[in-house]
Amino acid sequence: MSQDCIFCKIAAGQIGGPPLFQDEHVTAFRDVNPQAPLHVLLIPNKHIVSLNEANAEDQALLGHLMLTAVKLAQAEGVANGGYRLVANTGPNGGQSVFHLHLHLLAGRRLTWPPG
Amino acid sequence: MSQDCIFCKIAAGQIGGPPLFQDEHVTAFRDVNPQAPLHVLLIPNKHIVSLNEANAEDQALLGHLMLTAVKLAQAEGVANGGYRLVANTGPNGGQSVFHLHLHLLAGRRLTWPPG
Repeated sequence: MSQDCIFCKIAAGQIGGPPLFQDEHVTAFRDVNPQAPLHVLLIPNKHIVSLNEANAEDQALLGHLMLTAVKLAQAEGVANGGYRLVANTGPNGGQSVFHLHLHLLAGRRLTWPPG
Repeated sequence: MSQDCIFCKIAAGQIGGPPLFQDEHVTAFRDVNPQAPLHVLLIPNKHIVSLNEANAEDQALLGHLMLTAVKLAQAEGVANGGYRLVANTGPNGGQSVFHLHLHLLAGRRLTWPPG
């Protein structure tokens, strides 16, 4: 855990109330500035700054993060309607919190390009 | 391999010329309608229709897909500048080819929301 990281605090249950989903490896919670009717963030419980800092030992964790997003899409009833997963890294990616996270957006027609 | 799938044909080397990257599990190639100075698609070599059809046995494959995107971002010189990964599923996600793929976009400031 990184002491000053808001996402680490959410994963630890110190702020933000009960998560939408949590297991040993990942935590999911709603984005406070939703950009779609469903907008969930999925994070690894361990502090990884961004995808640039992920390495081979995180392979299973990253796969689990994606599969958890799919399960949440199913649980929230948006899997068949469709959804978009987004991961931002660095300035051009628009990353705003420096703890790796996936955005799950659904409930409206996402347009192209993706930003 | 799915006979009528254009991405399967690219992975098999039947169309599209040499890929940007290929190993036993994944293939990467440039999007024919780029939405950023760098716009690469990464696909599993095996035919998976979308994330909805991915299952637990694909966990390592999905993680490898993401880590390969990071390696390509590094190889293309955009890792530090930043990049966005996007996976579209179904109609609301804007999925247009029904073989699971990740978009890697970089080289310009990606805006928010992501579509």
